[in-house]
Amino acid sequence: MYLEHISSPADIRGYTADQRRALAQEMRTALIRRTSMVGGHIGPNLGIIETVIALHTVFDSPRDQIIFDVSHQCYPHKMLTGRAGAYLDEAQYSGVSGFTNPEESPHDIFSIGHTSTSISLATGLAKARDLAGRSENIIALIGDGSLSGGEALEGLNVAGEMETGLIIILNDNDQSISENHGGMYRKLKELRETNGAAPDNLFRAMGLAYRYVADGNDAEALIAAFTAVKDTRRPVVLHIHTQKGKGLSFAEADPEGWHRHAPFHIESGAHKKIAAPDPYAAATVDFVLAEAQRNPNFVYLSAGIVGGINLTPADRAALGSQYVDVGIAEEHAVAMAAGVARGGARPVFGTYSTFFQRVYDQMAQDVCINRSPAVFLATGTSLYRSTDVTHLGFYDISIFSHIPNLVYLAPTSVAEHIAVLRWAVEQREHPVMIRMPYTGYDESPYPVRADYGTLNKSIVVTEGADAALIGVGNFAALASAAAAELAREGIHATVVNPLYLSGLDTALLDALKANHRLILTIEDGIIDGGFGQKVAAFYGAQGSVRVKNYGLPKQFFNRYNPDELARTYHLTAPQIAADVLRAMR
Amino acid sequence: MYLEHISSPADIRGYTADQRRALAQEMRTALIRRTSMVGGHIGPNLGIIETVIALHTVFDSPRDQIIFDVSHQCYPHKMLTGRAGAYLDEAQYSGVSGFTNPEESPHDIFSIGHTSTSISLATGLAKARDLAGRSENIIALIGDGSLSGGEALEGLNVAGEMETGLIIILNDNDQSISENHGGMYRKLKELRETNGAAPDNLFRAMGLAYRYVADGNDAEALIAAFTAVKDTRRPVVLHIHTQKGKGLSFAEADPEGWHRHAPFHIESGAHKKIAAPDPYAAATVDFVLAEAQRNPNFVYLSAGIVGGINLTPADRAALGSQYVDVGIAEEHAVAMAAGVARGGARPVFGTYSTFFQRVYDQMAQDVCINRSPAVFLATGTSLYRSTDVTHLGFYDISIFSHIPNLVYLAPTSVAEHIAVLRWAVEQREHPVMIRMPYTGYDESPYPVRADYGTLNKSIVVTEGADAALIGVGNFAALASAAAAELAREGIHATVVNPLYLSGLDTALLDALKANHRLILTIEDGIIDGGFGQKVAAFYGAQGSVRVKNYGLPKQFFNRYNPDELARTYHLTAPQIAADVLRAMR
Repeated sequence: MYLEHISSPADIRGYTADQRRALAQEMRTALIRRTSMVGGHIGPNLGIIETVIALHTVFDSPRDQIIFDVSHQCYPHKMLTGRAGAYLDEAQYSGVSGFTNPEESPHDIFSIGHTSTSISLATGLAKARDLAGRSENIIALIGDGSLSGGEALEGLNVAGEMETGLIIILNDNDQSISENHGGMYRKLKELRETNGAAPDNLFRAMGLAYRYVADGNDAEALIAAFTAVKDTRRPVVLHIHTQKGKGLSFAEADPEGWHRHAPFHIESGAHKKIAAPDPYAAATVDFVLAEAQRNPNFVYLSAGIVGGINLTPADRAALGSQYVDVGIAEEHAVAMAAGVARGGARPVFGTYSTFFQRVYDQMAQDVCINRSPAVFLATGTSLYRSTDVTHLGFYDISIFSHIPNLVYLAPTSVAEHIAVLRWAVEQREHPVMIRMPYTGYDESPYPVRADYGTLNKSIVVTEGADAALIGVGNFAALASAAAAELAREGIHATVVNPLYLSGLDTALLDALKANHRLILTIEDGIIDGGFGQKVAAFYGAQGSVRVKNYGLPKQFFNRYNPDELARTYHLTAPQIAADVLRAMR
Repeated sequence: MYLEHISSPADIRGYTADQRRALAQEMRTALIRRTSMVGGHIGPNLGIIETVIALHTVFDSPRDQIIFDVSHQCYPHKMLTGRAGAYLDEAQYSGVSGFTNPEESPHDIFSIGHTSTSISLATGLAKARDLAGRSENIIALIGDGSLSGGEALEGLNVAGEMETGLIIILNDNDQSISENHGGMYRKLKELRETNGAAPDNLFRAMGLAYRYVADGNDAEALIAAFTAVKDTRRPVVLHIHTQKGKGLSFAEADPEGWHRHAPFHIESGAHKKIAAPDPYAAATVDFVLAEAQRNPNFVYLSAGIVGGINLTPADRAALGSQYVDVGIAEEHAVAMAAGVARGGARPVFGTYSTFFQRVYDQMAQDVCINRSPAVFLATGTSLYRSTDVTHLGFYDISIFSHIPNLVYLAPTSVAEHIAVLRWAVEQREHPVMIRMPYTGYDESPYPVRADYGTLNKSIVVTEGADAALIGVGNFAALASAAAAELAREGIHATVVNPLYLSGLDTALLDALKANHRLILTIEDGIIDGGFGQKVAAFYGAQGSVRVKNYGLPKQFFNRYNPDELARTYHLTAPQIAADVLRAMR
């Protein structure tokens, strides 16, 4: 065994080619075993093992700085930088995150989870190095679909003008998360087929030097290529061709399905546990397929992650020209949706809440100033969803609810979600964004509407007195549960589902003043800039009603336990009920 | 005279080459005359006259749809689409805006003001057209530095994969607003020098067809080129070489100075009126130059608009390698700043508030999750600044104040601004964003601090009782003026400068409860998600103090009169004082 003895990259520098091959095999075995037990981004990491061995053989990390784009392909890097135990020893599996993290190791330069940032970050490190007169190597490793993101292309263009050393490694595995999209990928294919000689080279067109390595899973070839560019005084792109999923037959055969995988049986590749299907996503997929049939002008847009609702290859095939995957390019997707709607068709663009963060400007300018009636579907909008600090899905209310002309809705059940989505797609008046529920009511406790065009009209779920609980989206059910607890104590609280995040039902809020002393707002998001603060500000001008905002504080949480986090911030029914009782006394 | 008789593009379609030349001359004369009187984007528009004549000769607008990127180069288009009067008749000069606007004309497809969006919007129009089985031409006209923006590059990549008709015209005038930046511009130069034949063609590298037109100011050559691609069934780039400022000698000689110009004397090019220098920008420039001298690791980053503080060519030369203009690429600039700070140097990235909208994700991910102590300077943050709907500068508090780890500050005077900036650049703990004042105190009414590291500590400007006026940034002086009015009525109000937008001085707010019944928050921004709502939410939980939020409603205003807008929303001292008196009775 080599791996268990590696505590820093220096340990592998004297290895022979045979030792490196043995090490790669050990790493592959450990990766497969670990992922089979706890899941993870198996495909990208299997493809990049030799690259990482070569990097740590040629360069002197952490003096030389390696930035992993998206950073979900950092597992082999962690194995060679003092964290092998977390990949070898089951008891230590939870000791590392799935992304680079400077708090774990000085070999991790940034905490990274969104794509396409590595080149820009690297140019900054290079600038700081040059100002200080130092000479370390700066290496950005990008690939796996990230190159189509605008920030990466901006970075290439700026790097192309910098007259300084900067090494950009394009890990070309001919595969994004689902598929690669965009004209550049056809050209990358030509480069692969010509050993890097094809004309119209994107990198050279950006002013960069370029080198091709045909077998990106051959550590020896990579070591030669890295050695040749080490200590370069100008920016250079190394285009290396790797195989995603290398060494795991299932992953080699189905790179999309094995980009990230849940725990599986190593022999068969079968899931160890069939995940319960998300009822909201499933209903959305059904709606999308039916709507595409019904309306030939309906189109579903995706930005590299199958629309945030896991459209299967069969779904995408069924949608045909009514499905567009633009690759990882959220800004483009939003502006394109604005154009589709302006052209008279009906677009829905879906992605995770955390990736919508990239499109504030496009939502404001391309969509909302133009009142383009495009529809946006934000998924994973919950503290119960992704718990990685780079993928938190509970900031969207604070980001998008204050853009003029945008109707932002938080439905509370499958039925209400689909009713809202249907209305959004049929109407032509408003840009609409929908916060797809993640948890909440199993069934709607009230009939849904056919028309949501009367904006900002809340739903009174339960009529009561003294206290009113306004439960937003996912947390409408929590508000009802807290009200049920209160009912046992003799307090019959009003429960309201506001539905609209982008405006207040001022008539209802005014009416509540008559027989309510305490208003609670409960949202699956941060309090700062959230829905509850708007309610507090509404009542604040009068000073007669107390308003308590429930939600999360403005803070980056990482790898947290969602139930614990909810308890810490009193986001459970018993705690809310107890708080109300205390306040009412 | 031709121009005065043109009410729609159809009127020019039968013109001879001589008539077109005469028309171009008339348009040039009208543009120069109008701009000499009311100012505007003279350089880009002079360069594009022949392009627009050719477009409207070959294509059938509005059936064929032409999208103008940034759209500040839309004046000739407006002249030929029923709005000639607004360029010929002084009395009608204010009848049109400086950007495309669908409310003005069906020939304007989108309201556009930010760069790099046209290709993405065009792909959306093309998709809608194809779904509906129509066949109109879709044309995106991009250039003048916009091509370096990530959204434009994403758009090229997606367009390169679309097997449908789409015409992208690159208006290459070898000039951005200040300078073009990035490796691609060197390659565009090679294309110009080789009549389009140079290798490593960016557009072909993105999968697009490509054609070059050497003289982009020759309407006849352009007509031939446009005719050749009309009704194309595949995406094609027409690279046309134009001369910015053509026909106005001063503008030809100094394209940066004449990109946009204030009213001038036609004979000499001299300004008609010397604008009073902005004291905040001037002090910032002085600070930047001095700090660069003092600290060799200090670097100022700009994204195509000379840092938002109008660094002159001499300033930039003095800064040398301590100045980096990345071109129009705000996302890159923010990530690069994160890298510079991580590398131990001290970056400041400055741009207008409205352009910071593009970088929410980079601020959150690259900067704030990583606690990278970079400094960001937002300028034009006032309702008194740009009044175009696409350039409003008063949304930044709602966007950025809720990002964890970011210290967002709104200084109130030149002295406080520079003190805050100095602290920000010297400390290494926090990412810091500064809202550069635009109006406000001439001189600070209190001594400034040397250290702003004790976060969220407000400044009590005047101690009083009963009512407290919390005046944010630009409006601190307004709060003091209102307090002065109140003092005449016998009410001695407390005045507070909160300074920190990203957190509350809860100790002070708690203390105010003892002898204040009414709290006013007054900010030069929208109320939704703004600073005041945080104060309202703080007091709302107690219900004992009334809080009134002053600011603008969540709404897109366009070409408004700032004083009128301020009056409409009671943002004047007499109105605020009267409101307080009424409320206190």
